Amino acid sequence: MAAAAASSPPPAAITCRAAVAWGPGQPLVMEQVEVAPPGPMEIRVKVVSTSVCRSDVSAWQSKAQPDLFPRIFGHEASGVVESVGEGVTEFQVGDHVLTVFIGECKSCKHCVSGKSNMCQKLGLERRGVMHSDQKTRFSIKGKPVYHYCAVSSFSEYTVVHSGCAVKVGSTVPMDRVCLLSCGVSAGLGAAWNVANVSKGSSVVIFGLGTVGLSVAQGSKMRGASKIIGVDTNPEKQEKGKAFGVTDFINPDELSEPVQQVIKRITDGGADYAFECVGDTGVVSTALQSCCDGWGVTVTLGVPKTKPEVSAHYAFLLSGRTLKGSLFGGWRPKSDLPSLVDKYADKEIQVDDLVTHDIAFNDINKSLELMLENKCLRCVIHMAQLDN
Amino acid sequence: MAAAAASSPPPAAITCRAAVAWGPGQPLVMEQVEVAPPGPMEIRVKVVSTSVCRSDVSAWQSKAQPDLFPRIFGHEASGVVESVGEGVTEFQVGDHVLTVFIGECKSCKHCVSGKSNMCQKLGLERRGVMHSDQKTRFSIKGKPVYHYCAVSSFSEYTVVHSGCAVKVGSTVPMDRVCLLSCGVSAGLGAAWNVANVSKGSSVVIFGLGTVGLSVAQGSKMRGASKIIGVDTNPEKQEKGKAFGVTDFINPDELSEPVQQVIKRITDGGADYAFECVGDTGVVSTALQSCCDGWGVTVTLGVPKTKPEVSAHYAFLLSGRTLKGSLFGGWRPKSDLPSLVDKYADKEIQVDDLVTHDIAFNDINKSLELMLENKCLRCVIHMAQLDN
Repeated sequence: MAAAAASSPPPAAITCRAAVAWGPGQPLVMEQVEVAPPGPMEIRVKVVSTSVCRSDVSAWQSKAQPDLFPRIFGHEASGVVESVGEGVTEFQVGDHVLTVFIGECKSCKHCVSGKSNMCQKLGLERRGVMHSDQKTRFSIKGKPVYHYCAVSSFSEYTVVHSGCAVKVGSTVPMDRVCLLSCGVSAGLGAAWNVANVSKGSSVVIFGLGTVGLSVAQGSKMRGASKIIGVDTNPEKQEKGKAFGVTDFINPDELSEPVQQVIKRITDGGADYAFECVGDTGVVSTALQSCCDGWGVTVTLGVPKTKPEVSAHYAFLLSGRTLKGSLFGGWRPKSDLPSLVDKYADKEIQVDDLVTHDIAFNDINKSLELMLENKCLRCVIHMAQLDN
Repeated sequence: MAAAAASSPPPAAITCRAAVAWGPGQPLVMEQVEVAPPGPMEIRVKVVSTSVCRSDVSAWQSKAQPDLFPRIFGHEASGVVESVGEGVTEFQVGDHVLTVFIGECKSCKHCVSGKSNMCQKLGLERRGVMHSDQKTRFSIKGKPVYHYCAVSSFSEYTVVHSGCAVKVGSTVPMDRVCLLSCGVSAGLGAAWNVANVSKGSSVVIFGLGTVGLSVAQGSKMRGASKIIGVDTNPEKQEKGKAFGVTDFINPDELSEPVQQVIKRITDGGADYAFECVGDTGVVSTALQSCCDGWGVTVTLGVPKTKPEVSAHYAFLLSGRTLKGSLFGGWRPKSDLPSLVDKYADKEIQVDDLVTHDIAFNDINKSLELMLENKCLRCVIHMAQLDN
């Protein structure tokens, strides 16, 4: 077998369709891109489904990195291994995988610690290139096309580091399990790993998007007795109920600060507060909404504006904790398979978070829906080019 | 016995000497004050020793509550029960006690929880009166003299709620154990209860006063392998060593931000960072000095100026935790006796934190020494009126 593998011709570049952003906020354009063969320890993946996360949209709109265009966004995805690079033994052609936006090298200080998912080798990639050689694997007529989070799943094929992919069973629905690649896992992990929600506790969740609803689901599974959902969109009230929200508050309908209402209905403040909006002002409100002594506030959102979190020191001195997490504290390779199993065993809800199935050709529609707050997750079906 | 107790005459008011502040920052004046008998569930204490804490000095200087003068400061104290009010069964005349600035009623939601020291009945008192009836027990010629933290130990006698005192053995040196009433306990508790410092870990402490040195001591006892002390006072280098500091940094001597130096010598950031200065800007520096993934920053100081703690969200999203504590998370009645035992058994250092023994008459000298950063703890000896 080894000899056979050694004699296989090395994978060649592939030309395929990708939805390319040519500038901040400009509609994605379907282009023919060249996808290089996977480098050492990399794999090339035929993307099957990619769901659209708020951070794809925020990064697409952001004018902070104008040099990183043209660029291919997308990171919450499932696919099939098309070819493997030198040294890859973990994956074989045909394996079903999830891509992950933070990898796990299993050898750095953080991976070895067993208590961190901040891999020092395959951590969040912000420069639009691959971790290993700081270069792109995409090009159009020889001109590089930049990556996003070293995943770039808005393409029929993509190259990822083998440390940034997780094998999944071949019977799991690819067009739904992709949600575990980011949003759903982030929410569940925030409740389970980061806050460690306890039975009988009170929880408040600011923002009932995919992440917030997954925090609700995780809190309900832990036996929280009160799960307060806060959202300015009244349609979230019904959706919230389906994921465990027991009390819904629309701050726009209040005549007093939302934290006062929360303190009243929780007898002094919630045990746990989660910021899932991506607004540092809301982080401060969340901290004020949790209780003295043991209240924990977890911030999950990436703020679109003011990056500074601010809080009066007295909220900390009174025994509250403010913490954050990326990907819900999960170590992708070590922990994600167990979440996939829970999905396969119908222990966790994922399907109900998909509000739209969209053909790859219509990917811009998913960005519009996200900007208009009219969706939870849109799943892009790569093989289905037209509705 | 019950009959005999019932027939005892009720305690009368006492006239004694107290160091009274007549206005913010004005030198304390030795006055004859009338100390009312203890009310229900209160005890009157003959103060033996009171050490001076930074918060006494900050509150004395503060112009935020001009109506609360004249006022008697002091809260870190030991004494002997002189009389007990109606309903008090826990204390008897002659008992040795420590006063505490946050009480423990043992019946409110927080006390019952077993995981909080934020007693809802006897929490931090900020209005200069007693918890029970919002009145003072001190007066001068019928005019009320305000309390501080419901303790006011800069007086020969004071009245405290029985929930704000802890019995100590009669063989423990009163003029040293008073330090456990606030500063030393706050530091040890921050390391043990709040941060939960682990063996082999790295710790950075901003501010090597009594609290910071006690964090160092607590960290050393937990087996931390690197304890970095940061202080602008070069004299703290030697003192720090005696309490376990392994590396001393004077930020004034650096040509780069202190957090960069700390990240370098800890290979990415300390496991734990403690802010013991009372400066919200330093809280932000502390958060930047601890590591991704599991770094914990504990803020202990009460800021003298800007009350807002500010931090870039990315430091939280990368898995760091920011938390605070009052009195090191200790529940005074439940936990303080074990600390007193540790002191009696010479397991913890307290005596070496006392830099000055001062007669009550000279109490203003202790405030000056604190303002000039020339002391750790000054112990005021109430019985000794002159040097």
